Amino acid sequence: MPGKTRIKLIRSLKDKKNRNRHGLFIVEGDKTVKELLLSDWKVHSLYATEEWLKENPVKGDFDVFPVNESTLRRISLLKTPNHVLALSHLKEADPGKISCHGNLTLVLDNVQDPGNLGTLVRVCDWFGIRYIICSENCADIYNPKVVQSAMGSIFRVKVGYTCLKRFFSSPQNKKIPVYGAFLDEESIYSHTLGKSGFILLGNESRGISPAISGMVDFRITIPSAAYSGDSSESLNVAVAGGIIISEFRRKHFFGQDDG
Amino acid sequence: MPGKTRIKLIRSLKDKKNRNRHGLFIVEGDKTVKELLLSDWKVHSLYATEEWLKENPVKGDFDVFPVNESTLRRISLLKTPNHVLALSHLKEADPGKISCHGNLTLVLDNVQDPGNLGTLVRVCDWFGIRYIICSENCADIYNPKVVQSAMGSIFRVKVGYTCLKRFFSSPQNKKIPVYGAFLDEESIYSHTLGKSGFILLGNESRGISPAISGMVDFRITIPSAAYSGDSSESLNVAVAGGIIISEFRRKHFFGQDDG
Repeated sequence: MPGKTRIKLIRSLKDKKNRNRHGLFIVEGDKTVKELLLSDWKVHSLYATEEWLKENPVKGDFDVFPVNESTLRRISLLKTPNHVLALSHLKEADPGKISCHGNLTLVLDNVQDPGNLGTLVRVCDWFGIRYIICSENCADIYNPKVVQSAMGSIFRVKVGYTCLKRFFSSPQNKKIPVYGAFLDEESIYSHTLGKSGFILLGNESRGISPAISGMVDFRITIPSAAYSGDSSESLNVAVAGGIIISEFRRKHFFGQDDG
Repeated sequence: MPGKTRIKLIRSLKDKKNRNRHGLFIVEGDKTVKELLLSDWKVHSLYATEEWLKENPVKGDFDVFPVNESTLRRISLLKTPNHVLALSHLKEADPGKISCHGNLTLVLDNVQDPGNLGTLVRVCDWFGIRYIICSENCADIYNPKVVQSAMGSIFRVKVGYTCLKRFFSSPQNKKIPVYGAFLDEESIYSHTLGKSGFILLGNESRGISPAISGMVDFRITIPSAAYSGDSSESLNVAVAGGIIISEFRRKHFFGQDDG
């Protein structure tokens, strides 16, 4: 059984400053923990019911603690705790060392909602996008809600944080086209989207920040098909990201280009 | 100021059984309340800070209560309460009376997450889909989390609950094609999607239920573009809905059909 100090450590990891101090984050739930164990991420420790451990004999260079339901409830951040929880070491991508040339890369400017960030990680995983570059004011990728909504995709898509202005203007990136999602610009359906480049999405309510919008090469829009002007102001950012990335892939990866 | 009984009533509306008993639901936040006031939905009562009321002089056949921040905190379901909250009367669509012929209609089978349902309402609003038909075990459209994530779209897209099996086999609907989203079926990019029909999405983890899947005319899929077989198992249901609806609209509404 984990001791008091260890339980306190686990519980403290709901806060970013403690995650960074200890270099650890929480992974919860049968499916996501199994994906962690299959990944190349370094597991720190694992906490599971006797029943789960019987069904899933785990081995590796990390401590395994059998826990009862009541301890699990104490360490879990979920309302309905699952049978297993693990701590993993952080592994952030270094945006300065990522080669984005020839690939599609998602770039997020101040995306705040953890659920949106997690869903976008899952979208990238589905559509074969390997990297997400986040501005420093985006939600933290190790926030438990991000991990929850990203599911196992968090172990496959690499996420890094940086100053976007510096990132776009760096020698290795400045020739790569930046496609920025705005309202009322050229339709993604008729735009000749390239095979590769940066897809830039902005904040949930304010969109792409003025400091960054000048670095956008192509301003694109998902056109509304509402019957009158009377429709929603915008789409959820994760849905918008999904639609835009799908359209890039449709045109190039699946060879369904109209143009 | 609202009295104790009234505060108790408002707080009770976080539960479905109380919403149904009183025929009321909670609408929170400046933007969504303003959209409610502009809509044809019947407002029951409004609770706002003096400051908000000064900036937004409201009138109509409903009670208006100036409240202080502390009362607002007591009645709000949000962690950071906004300046205004309203109660609206429920207004459910009757699926038996909806004419789906010639239109695209979204149908949801056991979509459980309130955030997903709300986001799908917003997607429909954006793409001009007027009706969503939900199986009876879907999340409740008046759940505060649904209202929050749907934003003002909840007042424009009509949502009704019914038995899907009966709905699809009714005389007015049985000739309308049903497009069901599955994994590993024909790609939405190459499929000749029709101009109208039902788009059916299933549960977050189990997909479309076996009881309903026999009623699907066209089994469609958003193909994965992952580099290897090692990718996420599925997309978030709201993102999947957004991508599928976008593809229907691209082909027909925006006349970008590949042919």
